[in-house]
Amino acid sequence: MRRIEIGGASPYAVTVGAGLLDTLQIRERQVALIHPDDLPRTFVERVQAAVSPVVTISVPARDACKTLEVMAGVLSQLAQVALPRDGAVVGLGGGAATDLAGFVAASYLRGVAFYTLPTTLLGMVDAAVGGKTGVNLPEGKNLVGAFWPPTAVWCDTDTLETLPTEVFREGAAEAFKHGLIQDPSLLPRVLAPEFRPGGALLADTIADAIAVKAGVVTRDLTERGERAFLNFGHTLAHALEGVTHHAVPHGEAVGYGMHYAARVSRALGGADLTPDTLAFLRWQRPAPLPALRYEDVAPFMARDKKADSDGVRFVLLHELAHPYLTRVPGDVLREEFASWAQDVAALSRGQAGGPTG
Amino acid sequence: MRRIEIGGASPYAVTVGAGLLDTLQIRERQVALIHPDDLPRTFVERVQAAVSPVVTISVPARDACKTLEVMAGVLSQLAQVALPRDGAVVGLGGGAATDLAGFVAASYLRGVAFYTLPTTLLGMVDAAVGGKTGVNLPEGKNLVGAFWPPTAVWCDTDTLETLPTEVFREGAAEAFKHGLIQDPSLLPRVLAPEFRPGGALLADTIADAIAVKAGVVTRDLTERGERAFLNFGHTLAHALEGVTHHAVPHGEAVGYGMHYAARVSRALGGADLTPDTLAFLRWQRPAPLPALRYEDVAPFMARDKKADSDGVRFVLLHELAHPYLTRVPGDVLREEFASWAQDVAALSRGQAGGPTG
Repeated sequence: MRRIEIGGASPYAVTVGAGLLDTLQIRERQVALIHPDDLPRTFVERVQAAVSPVVTISVPARDACKTLEVMAGVLSQLAQVALPRDGAVVGLGGGAATDLAGFVAASYLRGVAFYTLPTTLLGMVDAAVGGKTGVNLPEGKNLVGAFWPPTAVWCDTDTLETLPTEVFREGAAEAFKHGLIQDPSLLPRVLAPEFRPGGALLADTIADAIAVKAGVVTRDLTERGERAFLNFGHTLAHALEGVTHHAVPHGEAVGYGMHYAARVSRALGGADLTPDTLAFLRWQRPAPLPALRYEDVAPFMARDKKADSDGVRFVLLHELAHPYLTRVPGDVLREEFASWAQDVAALSRGQAGGPTG
Repeated sequence: MRRIEIGGASPYAVTVGAGLLDTLQIRERQVALIHPDDLPRTFVERVQAAVSPVVTISVPARDACKTLEVMAGVLSQLAQVALPRDGAVVGLGGGAATDLAGFVAASYLRGVAFYTLPTTLLGMVDAAVGGKTGVNLPEGKNLVGAFWPPTAVWCDTDTLETLPTEVFREGAAEAFKHGLIQDPSLLPRVLAPEFRPGGALLADTIADAIAVKAGVVTRDLTERGERAFLNFGHTLAHALEGVTHHAVPHGEAVGYGMHYAARVSRALGGADLTPDTLAFLRWQRPAPLPALRYEDVAPFMARDKKADSDGVRFVLLHELAHPYLTRVPGDVLREEFASWAQDVAALSRGQAGGPTG
């Protein structure tokens, strides 16, 4: 079992290991449990046995739960059972459900305690750490939310064994990203055969990937500086999600987006990291994208949270583990988009022809 | 012109005076202006001239704007104009509109700068100070929101001159409450003839009432202690609003609620402050209440934010300016409710017979 401390004004710990769902301890007496409706029933029952929730709320799976409408229904259920301000919200499931649960916890009675039990690789490596919570708007992803650090995070690696392979590989994008921006030792490990549910490299690789984010978040709790580096690959990723109405899963969008950011980095004089990002895409085998023009994604990139009054800012890499934040000229964005689209099309053709990884 | 400093982690100042709408200075370049649709057009135009908003959003008047549905529409409008994270939200209007605008500012892109320009007495004395923002649920008032301190608050006393008399008197409840819990010099001033729009006592009385809240909030920014005293009279007030679906205006509900809290205080051995709370009600002349049984309001009191796992907590007064927080036995609540209802009915009969103040 590994334990990673997150610092800042509201410190907490992330615990990574097997069998954690059965050993939860929650200080608050009244607890609301929120989980996606496609979660294996046994996970829900194990948590119910451990914390005896006063209400268990099932929400739509994946991003379908991340709407203000779903949130309104969940909040009403909390009010109907009169969950008190010294109660707690427990989010069990993937990153979408825990993002929603966190924003519910942040907003109900102006804030109650929040616990996260991520059951996907993406949820463990990304969504569970950092205090970001929120929902989507029709206009774009994660445009509404709050910074609301959890009281504790438990990553039970047993829960990954029921994940479909493509969902596990989707989630590896964030671990690979943490390798690119800070800990290169993660790159070969993420691509290794033993990085799989039940595999020998699983728990330590997850814990080390979490540790990258934990360090960044501890040093920068409100995203004024270093924390923005965690968005490497995310500007195009959010645009791909927005333009396809979330048909592209987040981790696959990040895989595609990292390759675009690697291309833009190289175009602005950085080291060539495109072999790494292509190797990851070959390993991840994301679903092919629909045909997209630059004009389709550009408005979504301009609306990204990293945009300010002066234009679109990008996280780029000087070289491995040396990220920086910069404004990128529109002509570079457009040109690299065309080349990126060719790379992606070639990748899809290769996959259609059979395994390439 | 009076300036009141609010301390804490995010300090800011409240400025009280005439003509402030024309002299606003906002650091952020892109500003969204939110106001209720019944606000005098000239107020909106003066603020537009001062800050050149990129979007001006009109929302339903009073509590009709404090819903998650209205909030979703406002957030979408901000996303459609791509208000950047270094932009700002300006809330102009009564406490309901500024509560909504503040929660929008707290949530959009996980938080942008917020400015408040209250145009009602209630908004100036109560809603504009303390960083409480939020909306209602069908289950009760202010059950969703965030603590989100503004960057600055401007109280232009000229805006009170267009307020209907009954709305001005409604808002005086919070100023009177600040007198009861901390600054007894406010009590005779609130009831004096020169406390009226354009009157000689107006600006200083408002500023002194704000100063009470400013002091409390500065000392206790997350409502773990002293800040709860600001809820004197509010447990029944929120129940009256809930059971009547907000037909009772907040300030009138607080007027009624203060008298109930004064009764309960006396029943538990405190000084008799019911002559003061009755004098205020005679001055305020609230609309008569519908017939209510204790069973009608009790569930709403149990759902109040001050309720925790151990029951309903009340703010009571040992004597003038000596508030305390305690749990009240249910039989006392029930008995005093019956007596309170008699007082209130007598008051309404007196008013029906002609002016009593």
